[in-house]
Amino acid sequence: MNTIGKRFRVTTFGESHGNGIGCVIDGIPAGLFIDVEFLQNELNRRRGGQNLYSTQRKEDDKIEILSGVFEGFSTGSPIGMFIANKNTKSSDYDDIKDIFRPSHADFTYFYKYGIRDYRGGGRSSARESVARVASGAIAKLLLKEFNITTKSGIYQIGEVKASNIDFDFARQSEIFSLDKEVESAQKELVKKAKESHDSIGGVALICANNVPLGLGEPLYYKLDSAIGEAMLGLNGVKAVEIGSGVESSTKLGSQNNDYISKNGFMSNNSGGILGGISNGDEIYLKVHFKPTPSIFRTQKSIDKNNNEIELRLKGRHDPCIAIRGSVVAESLLSIIIADALLLNTTSKIEYLKKIYI
Amino acid sequence: MNTIGKRFRVTTFGESHGNGIGCVIDGIPAGLFIDVEFLQNELNRRRGGQNLYSTQRKEDDKIEILSGVFEGFSTGSPIGMFIANKNTKSSDYDDIKDIFRPSHADFTYFYKYGIRDYRGGGRSSARESVARVASGAIAKLLLKEFNITTKSGIYQIGEVKASNIDFDFARQSEIFSLDKEVESAQKELVKKAKESHDSIGGVALICANNVPLGLGEPLYYKLDSAIGEAMLGLNGVKAVEIGSGVESSTKLGSQNNDYISKNGFMSNNSGGILGGISNGDEIYLKVHFKPTPSIFRTQKSIDKNNNEIELRLKGRHDPCIAIRGSVVAESLLSIIIADALLLNTTSKIEYLKKIYI
Amino acid sequence: MNTIGKRFRVTTFGESHGNGIGCVIDGIPAGLFIDVEFLQNELNRRRGGQNLYSTQRKEDDKIEILSGVFEGFSTGSPIGMFIANKNTKSSDYDDIKDIFRPSHADFTYFYKYGIRDYRGGGRSSARESVARVASGAIAKLLLKEFNITTKSGIYQIGEVKASNIDFDFARQSEIFSLDKEVESAQKELVKKAKESHDSIGGVALICANNVPLGLGEPLYYKLDSAIGEAMLGLNGVKAVEIGSGVESSTKLGSQNNDYISKNGFMSNNSGGILGGISNGDEIYLKVHFKPTPSIFRTQKSIDKNNNEIELRLKGRHDPCIAIRGSVVAESLLSIIIADALLLNTTSKIEYLKKIYI
Amino acid sequence: MNTIGKRFRVTTFGESHGNGIGCVIDGIPAGLFIDVEFLQNELNRRRGGQNLYSTQRKEDDKIEILSGVFEGFSTGSPIGMFIANKNTKSSDYDDIKDIFRPSHADFTYFYKYGIRDYRGGGRSSARESVARVASGAIAKLLLKEFNITTKSGIYQIGEVKASNIDFDFARQSEIFSLDKEVESAQKELVKKAKESHDSIGGVALICANNVPLGLGEPLYYKLDSAIGEAMLGLNGVKAVEIGSGVESSTKLGSQNNDYISKNGFMSNNSGGILGGISNGDEIYLKVHFKPTPSIFRTQKSIDKNNNEIELRLKGRHDPCIAIRGSVVAESLLSIIIADALLLNTTSKIEYLKKIYI
Repeated sequence: MNTIGKRFRVTTFGESHGNGIGCVIDGIPAGLFIDVEFLQNELNRRRGGQNLYSTQRKEDDKIEILSGVFEGFSTGSPIGMFIANKNTKSSDYDDIKDIFRPSHADFTYFYKYGIRDYRGGGRSSARESVARVASGAIAKLLLKEFNITTKSGIYQIGEVKASNIDFDFARQSEIFSLDKEVESAQKELVKKAKESHDSIGGVALICANNVPLGLGEPLYYKLDSAIGEAMLGLNGVKAVEIGSGVESSTKLGSQNNDYISKNGFMSNNSGGILGGISNGDEIYLKVHFKPTPSIFRTQKSIDKNNNEIELRLKGRHDPCIAIRGSVVAESLLSIIIADALLLNTTSKIEYLKKIYI
Repeated sequence: MNTIGKRFRVTTFGESHGNGIGCVIDGIPAGLFIDVEFLQNELNRRRGGQNLYSTQRKEDDKIEILSGVFEGFSTGSPIGMFIANKNTKSSDYDDIKDIFRPSHADFTYFYKYGIRDYRGGGRSSARESVARVASGAIAKLLLKEFNITTKSGIYQIGEVKASNIDFDFARQSEIFSLDKEVESAQKELVKKAKESHDSIGGVALICANNVPLGLGEPLYYKLDSAIGEAMLGLNGVKAVEIGSGVESSTKLGSQNNDYISKNGFMSNNSGGILGGISNGDEIYLKVHFKPTPSIFRTQKSIDKNNNEIELRLKGRHDPCIAIRGSVVAESLLSIIIADALLLNTTSKIEYLKKIYI
Repeated sequence: MNTIGKRFRVTTFGESHGNGIGCVIDGIPAGLFIDVEFLQNELNRRRGGQNLYSTQRKEDDKIEILSGVFEGFSTGSPIGMFIANKNTKSSDYDDIKDIFRPSHADFTYFYKYGIRDYRGGGRSSARESVARVASGAIAKLLLKEFNITTKSGIYQIGEVKASNIDFDFARQSEIFSLDKEVESAQKELVKKAKESHDSIGGVALICANNVPLGLGEPLYYKLDSAIGEAMLGLNGVKAVEIGSGVESSTKLGSQNNDYISKNGFMSNNSGGILGGISNGDEIYLKVHFKPTPSIFRTQKSIDKNNNEIELRLKGRHDPCIAIRGSVVAESLLSIIIADALLLNTTSKIEYLKKIYI
Repeated sequence: MNTIGKRFRVTTFGESHGNGIGCVIDGIPAGLFIDVEFLQNELNRRRGGQNLYSTQRKEDDKIEILSGVFEGFSTGSPIGMFIANKNTKSSDYDDIKDIFRPSHADFTYFYKYGIRDYRGGGRSSARESVARVASGAIAKLLLKEFNITTKSGIYQIGEVKASNIDFDFARQSEIFSLDKEVESAQKELVKKAKESHDSIGGVALICANNVPLGLGEPLYYKLDSAIGEAMLGLNGVKAVEIGSGVESSTKLGSQNNDYISKNGFMSNNSGGILGGISNGDEIYLKVHFKPTPSIFRTQKSIDKNNNEIELRLKGRHDPCIAIRGSVVAESLLSIIIADALLLNTTSKIEYLKKIYI
């Protein structure tokens, strides 16, 4: 069950403190130029260890392409990629090998599998998301051919929300803040949390533009459904909102409906999706991340033998997983849209005729 | 793509104004007693036409079992079920066959497929959810064997929220309200929306209890991920929250973490899921429904030839889809947990040995 | 696991002596004219009870379309179909409910599931193949749009082989014999087997013509691989040969290789498939059916309590399952090729550009 | 489509002359001891370059485990494995980059994808099968826990067949011959073919023992169906026979049926499978390999521009692919049975109760 996508299929493997993280992408049409520099840049956006708002684990995250590319182009064969782990400090985790960190996957992995790679959280670590970004980068290369773009940023930290959304600003902001005006207040919250050995939650805003009308497969692989699956599969995500999201549930139909003029939709509460299918408008969604569960304060927990303990963690962790998580969410959205683009090729006879006749 | 589940696999078919709605459930273990009366009762919970808070379309929703059951028990063969459409009034829809209802799937289906069954929304109608409830009822029968239960109710209508949650009360409430104290205020909002030819949004709360520790498949079919996929695949759902949900993004780690004592978790912000795997605690989630898009007020839209029009709908619609939607959401949660229960049987060698040795 | 195909997905349900046999076909492009008369004709080709070479069970096999078709055309929604069972004589099977017929699925179903619908073999009956033919007929309608055709006939009964292959003759032959010259000898063998309360094996030859170059997905859903899966999933099939088949294993490379001229392949030992991908030449294969296991002679077996018994069957059975099986095999080949046609739409960027740009 | 298996899922990647061949195995239960020495031994069985009956390409085929194993045991996370390519001589293939080798995948890959990695056949090379053997070795480790074994050998080369089957002898034979008496005659045929710059076909016999009664999923993932899919997906395989195979089609029911006594089946024409489900008896099958298409004689073909050419290949190839292919076929059978073992855990409620109650 380590696979996402139906036609653009990504399978990942690897653990936080093993050899590295890898992925296999199956279903990429032949003839796509695989721009390795672009892939590396995408990985760099997610990379930690760059500033005080992220983990201090410094990985160079150098991407290695193992297969599926010949003379620069995709061949139709699966693309294997690998990113080695270099900056592991497994000894940090010796203390926790017999105990369960609160609100962590330690507890559930141990009881599900009867065995647990405790080093850095093993497979459950956010380190795995490097493979999602690498795969998302390939998806972006495919989407680019059709002028489709995706973008992301931090909408909210704690209670501080963006109001003037600026995705260009977000790309340069150390915390990917979407609003120049609130960036420093948001940074302050992260810093304060970190200084008090705590962590803080946040919200990412993710968009896709120029998505062709008609993507999304009814009724059980709707575009919003697939997006929801992807986002809630991301570590620490506790809620997803499409379009007007939670607000829509408080509205009247006459307030929430998007009327249509000959120039298109007159509002976009739908978030670009109707009946699970893209309507040609901007797709946007909010992804809510809980605060990083690994905090450095004293916490109550138990060990494997059900003894109560007080624990104080070591290790290196992001004080706010929403920040780097926003890049991963953008990557996942790219994968879902690429998948929908491939799936939609068989929606009508007319399309098949364009290919075969 | 009309299938949900990996091992407990439900495939549905049928349209609002066609012969009926059917489903095939594949993967049900042999030897399960298929209690037809229970199935019918579940369908009755979702049935409309019962009171002024739901559609006036009256279907008897009689379930017919077509296969897979022998002398009352499942045989391991796929269970086919069918629910005939009887109370269709297709003429109500003649007026809209060339126009697009705002915030409806009309527009996207037409452009995706180049053809559209406009009668009652065709395949995109909430009528299809009767198959989800029928399948969910089979899932519940399976879960019962392991003492796992699911339940649901209306948490919020417009801005009116429940505070004293009472699932027993919800089962009797005409609007499935979870709180006796706010039921009449919630009803009033629905009634007012209806009287002004409008509709209103709402929020359902869904729970599962006694879910064994260890269900959910990392990392791309996490329990929360699968739940998110299912819920966002439900008509009109614009947001899903697991556990503390959107609130978690405003919290500090020290506030949001669930500490553990030898008697179990000391709080449940996780909503019973850690790292995508059930932790043995109650699973709970909130599902946000937008207001029904079909309202009876004048709206702006376009027709197939991109001419601007003003439309006034006819037809029969729920003034608040959250109400009956809550039953469907509960059914979907049952399916997802049943699927996870089946998937988990191969998680460790020890389980296989219990079966084969 | 009652599903075949990846993009043209057929799910079947139903048992020999239940309400009927049904199927759901998901993934059919919108805009295909669903010619119901053609579907019925296809079902009639497989129908038994017509002559002394097939079962005496007479079913009218009337097809009922439950969904997915609007004003004659496919809508992109799943097509549900149902064929009622009418001529069941379950009492024929009372005697065998506690015993296992030799070389039958009785034994394995009972031990796998702990329960068994013994009436007419339940789900394991060849009756289920009516759904394969119905689905195959839809596949044929799709293939026709691209001028692709499939055909079949009986190549061999016992040791009597066809030499002058004539598919047109086969369509009129009561035993679908491919060779006018040997038809009577083949008939004689079937008749003789039947008269001596026995049954006989046979071989079907199946072809597909005008299959576009390039269909088939490497490396684990190769066209031949998918064909093999489909054919060996058909009741009573014990061997499948693609192209030169078993003979190829006795040859030298210089004898078996197909040289290429500017006008195409100079021979066709490959059977139209190279590296799992169609090469534009005729696809052909042989499907070997064992003799019907249900014979009316005294046989040795056991009952549920492991007591040895001598049994003499009642019931109505084909004396040679290869005959009607050939039609089912042709249907399955149509499904596989339709699936490959849909899958291939994403094989290169160029195809996507034809659709989206 | 580079994945095989439903619950024991193997995804492979890599090309003949790229970095190497890799695979990801998903679905392995936690707690399995991963015996790396055993894995390496399995790879060594398939390894070429050892004697004059195989390719002269010498790869050390050293297995590298990238993930999913912790302190020697499987963790439930996907197992990534990689085998580097070291002994590539890509220059051998410069001459063929614009031409199509007869009976090779060159032609179909080029036209399907519009691009082709011509070096050593790229993805279509038998080199990929090293990943199948590595995955099969993991499957064997799982099967061992339940005392299930698989074995293989060469049954036939050209027209020379084994009669006294001896699997132990086959393991030591340079050509894996199953019969001491015919080994030298079989070797002679291979040698002669090789000396005349030709190649020769052959047949492998594959068995599985102690397979529990009840494995295999009806009706579209039957055990024989899944085996057929796997075997026909192997390079150069043109026919598969289960049990009495092609012979069964010439028999009467009274000859072919396997009677049952209280001690079990009295014959095994079924090859251990009834109705797609294992019956507890030995599973056996024959896999027919065509002669290697790469021969070193002058052949007629065309180039990319449809010019007729005469070609004489260089490169290193097996004179008889059946020999090493037999090991791969055995590996694939192991994967299919492991998959069936996992799938069967949900066949009856009773099994679930053993786990959960």
